[in-house]
Amino acid sequence: MKTAKSIILYVALVLFGFTAVSELLFAQIPSTIPDALTVIHSRKSVRKYLDKPVSKEQLEILLRAGMAAPTAGDKRPWEFVVITDPAMLDTLSLATRGTRMLSSAAAAIAVCGNTSIGFKSEVWVHDCSAASENILLAVEAIGLGAVWTGIYLNVEPTKYVQRVLGLPEEVIPLNVISIGYPTGAEKPKNKWDPTKIHWEKW
Amino acid sequence: MKTAKSIILYVALVLFGFTAVSELLFAQIPSTIPDALTVIHSRKSVRKYLDKPVSKEQLEILLRAGMAAPTAGDKRPWEFVVITDPAMLDTLSLATRGTRMLSSAAAAIAVCGNTSIGFKSEVWVHDCSAASENILLAVEAIGLGAVWTGIYLNVEPTKYVQRVLGLPEEVIPLNVISIGYPTGAEKPKNKWDPTKIHWEKW
Repeated sequence: MKTAKSIILYVALVLFGFTAVSELLFAQIPSTIPDALTVIHSRKSVRKYLDKPVSKEQLEILLRAGMAAPTAGDKRPWEFVVITDPAMLDTLSLATRGTRMLSSAAAAIAVCGNTSIGFKSEVWVHDCSAASENILLAVEAIGLGAVWTGIYLNVEPTKYVQRVLGLPEEVIPLNVISIGYPTGAEKPKNKWDPTKIHWEKW
Repeated sequence: MKTAKSIILYVALVLFGFTAVSELLFAQIPSTIPDALTVIHSRKSVRKYLDKPVSKEQLEILLRAGMAAPTAGDKRPWEFVVITDPAMLDTLSLATRGTRMLSSAAAAIAVCGNTSIGFKSEVWVHDCSAASENILLAVEAIGLGAVWTGIYLNVEPTKYVQRVLGLPEEVIPLNVISIGYPTGAEKPKNKWDPTKIHWEKW
């Protein structure tokens, strides 16, 4: 009887351990990801977040998506700085008027162009923008919310983010993507406008 | 009997009509779209195409996806020129070394920034790049193949595409996306590179 009890206890412990580990690994990733067109059309800018952390695993899904975007000549001139430290998010939130929501975000990804990699032109801006859009779609796909806050093109905010993140001079932050669990308040827009389409010629 | 025959003929004609119309409307759109993360990771640059046309309905799915991308300040400074005329695709293919595949493409979308809309800065480049990435993902989602061919930043090709498409001076082509049915020869790349990730700080 003692042996039977021990076996049951052992099995229970193994099962508990397995559940705990799988919880840790998979809990926050939805088991079903919506189809690509649905995600493209349900993506919205999310600036209000629940007080709930995002995991390293979730962030890696986003980074994998970012790196899957095309780059000119396959040069991959991007660098990603990932921030989850609340004090750092607070400091970053002071970069511009448009970055304030970072103080209540669970995480941020600064998508940066490494101008020492790739072409001499500003094509890194195109590459980093495509990577950013992939990140925004992956965010929506796994049930998070995000907003692209522009940094590059604004001289002072660019210097500020470079200083705060300790970026080398040749690494330029295109944006800081603010990430968290959405409150559900923000809805996607229907931006379909056939007057923007020109068939065959202008 | 004559009436019965007429009814059968009538029903047959209606059914045939319905089939023909639904064929026209739905035939080329897959009934199942893969999930967003799968599409992000299976997207690849497709430069070789089958000799098979793409429909206006397919192109509209791509354009809807493009317009769903975020734009700075929600200004939506994009314009899309859609080309399916083989002679026009041939002419466009001469824009740069990188646009040659357009001569065998079924269609192309020139994603352009209307610099008279929105901000004075070059943020339209970010907006049009995000829209372009959405188009590339929608292409993959519906079983087509595409490649982003860069135009802007190259002075002569920009002028050439503006002239060929009859674009007003303030409308600048960021790229021409070449579209068709993939041959299956081109595969996605695994570009995952953890050295590009900087946790918390550079």
